[in-house]
Amino acid sequence: MSPRPSGPLAQVKALTFDVFGTVVDFRSSIIAEGRRLSALHGDAPVDWPAFADQWRAEYRPAMDRVTAGSETWINVDNIYRRALDMLIEKFGIDWLSEEELAEFNLIWHRLEPWGDSVLGLERLRKRFILATLSNGNVRLLVDLARHAKLPWDMVLSSELVRAYKPDRRMYQSAVDYLSLEPQEIMMVAAHQYDLRAAAELGFRTAFVMRPLEHGPEFQVDLTIDDDFDVVANDMVDLARQLGL
Amino acid sequence: MSPRPSGPLAQVKALTFDVFGTVVDFRSSIIAEGRRLSALHGDAPVDWPAFADQWRAEYRPAMDRVTAGSETWINVDNIYRRALDMLIEKFGIDWLSEEELAEFNLIWHRLEPWGDSVLGLERLRKRFILATLSNGNVRLLVDLARHAKLPWDMVLSSELVRAYKPDRRMYQSAVDYLSLEPQEIMMVAAHQYDLRAAAELGFRTAFVMRPLEHGPEFQVDLTIDDDFDVVANDMVDLARQLGL
Repeated sequence: MSPRPSGPLAQVKALTFDVFGTVVDFRSSIIAEGRRLSALHGDAPVDWPAFADQWRAEYRPAMDRVTAGSETWINVDNIYRRALDMLIEKFGIDWLSEEELAEFNLIWHRLEPWGDSVLGLERLRKRFILATLSNGNVRLLVDLARHAKLPWDMVLSSELVRAYKPDRRMYQSAVDYLSLEPQEIMMVAAHQYDLRAAAELGFRTAFVMRPLEHGPEFQVDLTIDDDFDVVANDMVDLARQLGL
Repeated sequence: MSPRPSGPLAQVKALTFDVFGTVVDFRSSIIAEGRRLSALHGDAPVDWPAFADQWRAEYRPAMDRVTAGSETWINVDNIYRRALDMLIEKFGIDWLSEEELAEFNLIWHRLEPWGDSVLGLERLRKRFILATLSNGNVRLLVDLARHAKLPWDMVLSSELVRAYKPDRRMYQSAVDYLSLEPQEIMMVAAHQYDLRAAAELGFRTAFVMRPLEHGPEFQVDLTIDDDFDVVANDMVDLARQLGL
């Protein structure tokens, strides 16, 4: 346990978290579920790691189309379902029933946390208000919190503002709903673009490194921006650096 | 523990709760805080029970003006502060500093739960998604949950929709954000008007009787509507009746 921070960080009252990749390990969870489905269907051979990567990759362009205004609002559950329908064709998966597909799409509601997440969040919650600030829809984030035992005080979601990060309205919603000044909120994320967008509004920033987010072979961008207030190896390290 | 309910109640997946009066006992909390302030200021004599009742009474007409459109959006923190400024004049309280008044207004963020609330909610959470559906603003509800250890999965608030119960948009927001059908949600409240408005959208309803909400001398309306799905003495009784 480090001393409680002084200086600008002493003002922080709430932490807002990116969830996918930062708090939960979507890739391993999807691969495990895919393998379970394969096993149920006579060990159907599918490259599940590639499937997981491509499923996740469909997410950003769909959200960007919403942000650019070329597509009306669509929530993440529906973005993933549309991508799933495309991917089962591409991977030649014709052995899943509609019921199984609907259930498979809900794997995003049952992702496993990184090993340090729950302990780190429990420690951080002793002093800070903890909120998601995620592009996931509300029900997805609620189910995920119940499944992975994530102790959120508030679920802030793109669905509440109908905009996706890094749209400024997302960060503004945290300021408004938490009734705090931007410098009283610290954005916690494994992705630089998310932290930079938060910093533009005046948030404090914590970069949590997740080198395995896209698997052991993918080179994650771990470039540390000098402007980040905290750089942490994981959530327990973040708690330690904040004196908890 | 009763058997798990069958029939229409078996469909229920989430419970949405009124908070002020139903989950927390605002009257006793305000009286206690008022008496603490009096003691700090030479035992200044104030009729704190009357003060508490009148403070709470200012809440409904202010919200009704928002609903009627004769006043633009104002959140509950500000409704209470405006009422506080009026009441300190009326009760001749000229011995509180601006800092103390600001802090006193935040008593609504630190109300005590009824004795059965936390145990009942913990039991209910084993099977149901628990959400507030309250006219309180988000930060107030978050602070209250942290203070009183209320295990909400989601904080649904008037502030998210800029409308106050019994405005239909409030109940609709629970349907939308929880991604459920109305009959999969049970509204839990100590107030008939709230349950009737929820039932109009198709919610199930649980009437939790709080005869002491307005103090021992006030006759609370405990009329049971035949259409209520459950009538409970408290939250532990509600859990029991739902098989938990």
